[in-house]
Amino acid sequence: MNATLPAHLLTMERRPVPAEMIAALKARFGERCSTAQAVREQHGRDESPFEVAPPDAVVFAESADEVAAAVALADHYAVPVIAFGTGSSLEGHLLAVQGGLSIDVSRMNRIVHLHSEDLTVTVQPGVTRNQLNNEIRHTGLFFPIDPGADASIGGMAATRASGTNAVRYGTMRENVLALQVVTASGEILRTGTRAKKSSAGYDLTRLMVGSEGTLGIITEVTLKLYPQPESVSAAICHFPDIAAAVATTIQIIQMGVPIARCELLDANAVRAVNQHDKLALRVAPMLLMEFHGSAASVAEQAHMVQEVAREHGGEDFEWATTPEERTRLWAARHRAYFAGMSANPGCRTVTTDTCVPISRLAECIDLAVREADGAGLPYYIVGHVGDGNFHIAYLIDPKIPAERDTAERLNEQLVHHALKLEGTCTGEHGIGLHKQGFLVDEAGLATVQMMRVLKQALDPKNILNPGKIFSL
Amino acid sequence: MNATLPAHLLTMERRPVPAEMIAALKARFGERCSTAQAVREQHGRDESPFEVAPPDAVVFAESADEVAAAVALADHYAVPVIAFGTGSSLEGHLLAVQGGLSIDVSRMNRIVHLHSEDLTVTVQPGVTRNQLNNEIRHTGLFFPIDPGADASIGGMAATRASGTNAVRYGTMRENVLALQVVTASGEILRTGTRAKKSSAGYDLTRLMVGSEGTLGIITEVTLKLYPQPESVSAAICHFPDIAAAVATTIQIIQMGVPIARCELLDANAVRAVNQHDKLALRVAPMLLMEFHGSAASVAEQAHMVQEVAREHGGEDFEWATTPEERTRLWAARHRAYFAGMSANPGCRTVTTDTCVPISRLAECIDLAVREADGAGLPYYIVGHVGDGNFHIAYLIDPKIPAERDTAERLNEQLVHHALKLEGTCTGEHGIGLHKQGFLVDEAGLATVQMMRVLKQALDPKNILNPGKIFSL
Repeated sequence: MNATLPAHLLTMERRPVPAEMIAALKARFGERCSTAQAVREQHGRDESPFEVAPPDAVVFAESADEVAAAVALADHYAVPVIAFGTGSSLEGHLLAVQGGLSIDVSRMNRIVHLHSEDLTVTVQPGVTRNQLNNEIRHTGLFFPIDPGADASIGGMAATRASGTNAVRYGTMRENVLALQVVTASGEILRTGTRAKKSSAGYDLTRLMVGSEGTLGIITEVTLKLYPQPESVSAAICHFPDIAAAVATTIQIIQMGVPIARCELLDANAVRAVNQHDKLALRVAPMLLMEFHGSAASVAEQAHMVQEVAREHGGEDFEWATTPEERTRLWAARHRAYFAGMSANPGCRTVTTDTCVPISRLAECIDLAVREADGAGLPYYIVGHVGDGNFHIAYLIDPKIPAERDTAERLNEQLVHHALKLEGTCTGEHGIGLHKQGFLVDEAGLATVQMMRVLKQALDPKNILNPGKIFSL
Repeated sequence: MNATLPAHLLTMERRPVPAEMIAALKARFGERCSTAQAVREQHGRDESPFEVAPPDAVVFAESADEVAAAVALADHYAVPVIAFGTGSSLEGHLLAVQGGLSIDVSRMNRIVHLHSEDLTVTVQPGVTRNQLNNEIRHTGLFFPIDPGADASIGGMAATRASGTNAVRYGTMRENVLALQVVTASGEILRTGTRAKKSSAGYDLTRLMVGSEGTLGIITEVTLKLYPQPESVSAAICHFPDIAAAVATTIQIIQMGVPIARCELLDANAVRAVNQHDKLALRVAPMLLMEFHGSAASVAEQAHMVQEVAREHGGEDFEWATTPEERTRLWAARHRAYFAGMSANPGCRTVTTDTCVPISRLAECIDLAVREADGAGLPYYIVGHVGDGNFHIAYLIDPKIPAERDTAERLNEQLVHHALKLEGTCTGEHGIGLHKQGFLVDEAGLATVQMMRVLKQALDPKNILNPGKIFSL
């Protein structure tokens, strides 16, 4: 544990994996159970600004039965278990703040059932979003949810992830049909079926989606797929200022244009992306948009959006006409996080994730920009603005505590502003270690207490990713 | 209690409201607390085939505080509480199988906040779907979820209802953003915000949606709204047989046509609707469809669908060109349930609600038709076939037990077939009293046990609509 973690986590009891349990794991997993320092450290960090908090051991599971066996042992010895996919969490989900066992599911990377005739697919949790789309490309279908990283589907379900396509296709909340889950006692069960809708009892699927590994470990995910649109068209449009880009977005959404992607990049983000991806975009606030549909529908959407953008001073509407151009632009957008970091070598980012009702977005971004400008930290903004969600990433030198403090203060001011605007502290990254205070501010003590009661009911020994979302 | 209830409910302990609690309710609610036989009976029945099981008292609540006060009393005396909206459940949700208190929320029928600029609205639970759409019409927005009855929004949330528009707009699962809920201890809390997406902790909103009043009583609902489409066009198309209509539907969905409504009526349903609504539809299986979008998009969708229908022998593609014609057709569709009943005076219906992956729909309906034909009971079929969901309503004489037995046997065969096809026993009606065995068949004992654990954690005295979904 290290001093950069929130104070309440510094005083948490450690619950190390006892030697007897290590022996049992080695007996079961052989070389796929590791206690090597490097392996443990790799599994005790993520893309959050926190330093590593390694688990005591790591097992590489290859089946739901193996996950269940490992969890049953953890249950017996009452030690923490944390599932690990690709390690791309931004909120410290993977840090073993009490020690314990990391269950790496990245080798569970098989497509279990592809039902293209029903637009559904069932995958193991270690399948990544890019892998999935590569493997199903021949069917003419695709899976739209795309967080910045090439995250695992299990991790995306666990954090209720979304990304650039959510404005049209929804988030993991809307796109997970069913799960296979290992419970805290090591039992394997299923939630949901492949039916598109159901009223059969409590919605355990959606209770597990976004539970950050604290209620069960996901071992299979059944997803909705979508036909690849007949026509796709992407465009960029530059604006005199961020406010104009945001005003354009708000109007597009209010008009009900079924835009597939509507992303804001501020001038700082454009500069970083230019440098990192060798692009030559004009350094000014821009919207990066995509339209899906029939040829006629795409043309119609584009026409409406151009009109709206022009009213708000949008210039240089440029079309990415070839798939290659489109891919290049979107890849650059997805790498904005790394582009921002590589522009300031050695830095870490503190990333905000507020999401507000669309009519409040201009006010929320305006405040964020003014406060970031006033504070003097380098930052950039990228945003899924069609959803009212944006990220301001403050670039800090991890060796200078005052920079972290400033970033955290800015984050806190922004969150409290977003809550006043009836928004949420996290649109898609989750609570993890970082936003536990914000969760209470947002939901209220009584609601968080209801979450605690559910956690205690399903995980009485508190072994499933303890210390995340809230402490007990 | 009566002999038509499932056996396990006949042996349930009654927990009547004690005189002392009645006195406390009368002190608080005055004339809005009733123990009159007629009022109690009206609140102890619904549209299910079960006979009335009246609560001991009814209060007419006018605010969340009043609901909370009534629940706090029920908690103190450990007696059941059941929320009542319009009484349109098909599954016995409103029957007071252990006695207790009915909290009628139909007077909580106010729109609390309309945020047309964000496409959201917050309503009290007693607002009905038609009332909501009438009250927001001037904004150019609408709320699409439309079960057959003019149900209350609170009841629709509690049963995870859907209807004819779900194929395009989703169900209550996708369209409830946030709730205000009274817990089993009489506390008022909020789940969710007005943000379009969030990763802030457990998804309590979706845990409550579909929980059938067993985890909390809904006192406010925040919903997504949609812009009224620029262009709407409805059509009917007749087919030589049900299989052809279903094959057409499957292909439309697999092609990704964003059809807004795609409803099947079999010849029996058409006949009943003709008679009840004085229409002159050709008595043959038909699809009743609707397209939403821009004028160009609607024309394009209609063109594609006509092509597909023609390939499958669809004839007489007839367009309802005026809003009046459209309204007349859809009103008739929504009244199919009553049309079917009025065709056989004195009858009750046993209604199936299976929902299967779209590719399995033809097989599932085919079996249902063959078995119903073989059994000799009158029946009709209506279906939200774009979702893989359909209802076969068996018309029975409630005075002839053998007819009920036959209907229940047919329902059971159909459910088990749907489960084999990876579907669900209930697409939109809920479990209630009727489908508790089916829930176990569908989800498995371990999964139902997880639901029980959640119920016991949130409602330790089992006062919230006890005996529904499962017995403890």
